[in-house]
Amino acid sequence: MASDDLIDEELRRDLPEEGGKPDDRVDDERHDEENRLKPEFVRRVVAALEDGDKSEVYDLVEPLHPADVADLFELVGREDRSALAEAVSDLLSSEVISELNDYVREDMIDALPAYAVAEIAEQLETDDAVQLIEDLDPRDQAAVLAEMEPEDRAAIESALSYPEETAGRLMQREFVAVPEHITVGDLIDFLRDEASDPDALPTDFFEIFVVDPAHRPVGTCQLSWILRTPRHIGLTDVMKRDQTLIPVTADQEEVALMFQKYGLISAAVVDEAGRLVGQMTVDDVVHIISEEAGEDALLLSGAGDGDINEPILLTVRARLTWLVINLGTAMLAASVVGMFQDAIAKFALLAVLMPIVSGMGGNAGTQTLAVTVRALATNQLTSTNTWRAIGRELTIASANGVALAILIGGGTALVFGNPLLGAVIGTAMIINNLTAGMAGIAVPVTLERLRVDPAVSSAVFVTTATDVMGFFSFLGLAVLTGLA
Amino acid sequence: MASDDLIDEELRRDLPEEGGKPDDRVDDERHDEENRLKPEFVRRVVAALEDGDKSEVYDLVEPLHPADVADLFELVGREDRSALAEAVSDLLSSEVISELNDYVREDMIDALPAYAVAEIAEQLETDDAVQLIEDLDPRDQAAVLAEMEPEDRAAIESALSYPEETAGRLMQREFVAVPEHITVGDLIDFLRDEASDPDALPTDFFEIFVVDPAHRPVGTCQLSWILRTPRHIGLTDVMKRDQTLIPVTADQEEVALMFQKYGLISAAVVDEAGRLVGQMTVDDVVHIISEEAGEDALLLSGAGDGDINEPILLTVRARLTWLVINLGTAMLAASVVGMFQDAIAKFALLAVLMPIVSGMGGNAGTQTLAVTVRALATNQLTSTNTWRAIGRELTIASANGVALAILIGGGTALVFGNPLLGAVIGTAMIINNLTAGMAGIAVPVTLERLRVDPAVSSAVFVTTATDVMGFFSFLGLAVLTGLA
Repeated sequence: MASDDLIDEELRRDLPEEGGKPDDRVDDERHDEENRLKPEFVRRVVAALEDGDKSEVYDLVEPLHPADVADLFELVGREDRSALAEAVSDLLSSEVISELNDYVREDMIDALPAYAVAEIAEQLETDDAVQLIEDLDPRDQAAVLAEMEPEDRAAIESALSYPEETAGRLMQREFVAVPEHITVGDLIDFLRDEASDPDALPTDFFEIFVVDPAHRPVGTCQLSWILRTPRHIGLTDVMKRDQTLIPVTADQEEVALMFQKYGLISAAVVDEAGRLVGQMTVDDVVHIISEEAGEDALLLSGAGDGDINEPILLTVRARLTWLVINLGTAMLAASVVGMFQDAIAKFALLAVLMPIVSGMGGNAGTQTLAVTVRALATNQLTSTNTWRAIGRELTIASANGVALAILIGGGTALVFGNPLLGAVIGTAMIINNLTAGMAGIAVPVTLERLRVDPAVSSAVFVTTATDVMGFFSFLGLAVLTGLA
Repeated sequence: MASDDLIDEELRRDLPEEGGKPDDRVDDERHDEENRLKPEFVRRVVAALEDGDKSEVYDLVEPLHPADVADLFELVGREDRSALAEAVSDLLSSEVISELNDYVREDMIDALPAYAVAEIAEQLETDDAVQLIEDLDPRDQAAVLAEMEPEDRAAIESALSYPEETAGRLMQREFVAVPEHITVGDLIDFLRDEASDPDALPTDFFEIFVVDPAHRPVGTCQLSWILRTPRHIGLTDVMKRDQTLIPVTADQEEVALMFQKYGLISAAVVDEAGRLVGQMTVDDVVHIISEEAGEDALLLSGAGDGDINEPILLTVRARLTWLVINLGTAMLAASVVGMFQDAIAKFALLAVLMPIVSGMGGNAGTQTLAVTVRALATNQLTSTNTWRAIGRELTIASANGVALAILIGGGTALVFGNPLLGAVIGTAMIINNLTAGMAGIAVPVTLERLRVDPAVSSAVFVTTATDVMGFFSFLGLAVLTGLA
């Protein structure tokens, strides 16, 4: 059985090692109770780095799970990342690289020579290798690509030919595809044979794609279906013909929505001619889902990328751009107040109360806006139910407007002994709540129709609407009613 | 080969049907180009419902993918959901139920008699059945459970004994566990045998758990590793000993972070004694990840659940609670303005400019807050790098504060020909930006340490800080410098 033994040897090399780390990673000397690296541990690594004791650094980092090695790179300061990368370059596996924050990966890669980057890239699957290389400046990118094997280089160049954040850029080019009309037994034999060549199969795969002679997918088999089927059954009797195909040009947001909607573990990526060119797996899509869902809060606030690892100058620029735009809207709102300077000079209490009306409108508008943006992003709000949603928001705005009007109007009338002032602020509050509800849904829905990301641009318009209408309705009513 | 034929028959029944729907779901008569149901299609279904034409409704819905059936329930109005459920009760598969929005599921279930709910629940895996039943009121819950088979009932009661949003409630109780010391061949034979009993194996599974005699997990095998290994190899030579175990009491947020951090497809859930009691699979976890990541924007705005399907009274209550709390902080800020009424009466231009200072501070504070809350939620900001992050935010706040001060201070000095007024508003702008930066990070970090969800409560404190400090610094400096 010499040949079988040989296969075993090679198989073992390719399969995950046994032994390894304890099951229970939580609450040990390196982790706190929420499975994050302890500050003391990070400080020991930093101290060893500062002492230049590379072997101490290596010994500390070596027992960590790859995801924790990635976390460690994020937790040390920028200035320590390149030294850390040099000390533990052996440990920079595919899993570490794919878990690293984009900015941190750049800090790390900048420190390594082209041949070292190429060496790491070659052991990665294409999608991870692309992540590693795409952010390098063109000169470094060329240097790294030149150091790589022609086949790997071609795969990466092909990925880079697709726009960022599309399936073509993000997909794995490694997958298992087999012809129709083979049996389950043939498939299992094929996989066992291929396993002897470490590069022939992807490290992990979750389905087998069945393709026609033109390499177009005709069906898919979950591995669990194959494992419970007798050898002599044909694959076409096991496979499912109905499958979700991802166009190579699909945006990552679209891909994430498909994975969520259809509960996918992996999916085939096809080119314009419908040929199978890659696959996407859920472990990569999970990061996209989390990113896309989490970015709403950041975009609505104008915090840009919102990444605490982003170089500080980029952050300042992103946030300042937004603040300057908002300065424009604040000045517009101030000019409304300016129209009523005489009234304020006569009756300064108006200036005391006016921020309440504009502020409450702003809060109500932000609520509606957050809900609308989320519903649009998850495809829950479509042209089918837009009018129902608008009706719903106006109902809520009326109810809350009246409740707040009674509270603040009644309070004002009592505290200042001025029922007219109470009536004016109460009425202004209702008007501004309706403005907030209307703007909070109409602005993002309109922007979405115009194909502008509603999370990025809505807040400016909504805040302008509630500020301007808040000041105008309150001060205007005060003048109209002869209060001032 | 009679026995083999029998197995095939049963296997086929259990495996997905071939044939079925076309691959390309996008842009057909039912879907728009973004894979959402077309308004015309939904209107046709609603029209048929209103005509009471159940068979027309069934014919329209029958060709849809389960995920689209779920979407359809969300897109029709509340009033149509129960009639739709009655018309298509045959089509309410596990996939439909698990894809439904919580509130929509309640609308649907309320319309069905207990035996019908029990019938649907019995074909579901435990985790989906629990979702169906957990929101029923106790009387309906008891009625449905009474209609179920004892074994299914016991599984659901066990799940309900764990708190909501914990692994014990969310896990699947169906999984594949095998003893150590069997070979790959033994395992494949076992799975083929079990496959003849439709209830013996979960519908889908992605790994095999290897357990010791006390049913504690000792290792895990991805199905792809089994498929590429010769039959005579022992499972312990293929399995990975190092695996992520989820405690049955783990909160869903923790589970979601583990799946993301370790790139898991599925994972074992263990009880206090370390025994395997269930599994969680990534298709369920993606919904949690998306929900947890997306809720930041909603919580920060005080929009509660932020679900457009939530009954309107619950929405009004959630949002009004938040608005009333904010009314308190708005009144506090107004009282600061009240201290300067005399100054404003003398120099009304102060009232015109003061909202700019408080508003810009609010914007800057919201930016820092959104970034901090996201970094805390993703475990990127831990006690290890808190001080570094605070330093970073104060640097950004200083830079942006100075930039805005020059813009607005210079502008004010020029437009109103009053350099002192320009200097006052510029200085106040710097002070308020620093306040915003400090509060935007210190408030959520402190709340997190106190184990209060920073996304829920931070915004009130931060806005109060920027409003109060904005008015106080600007008006105070104006008085101090003798402007008014």
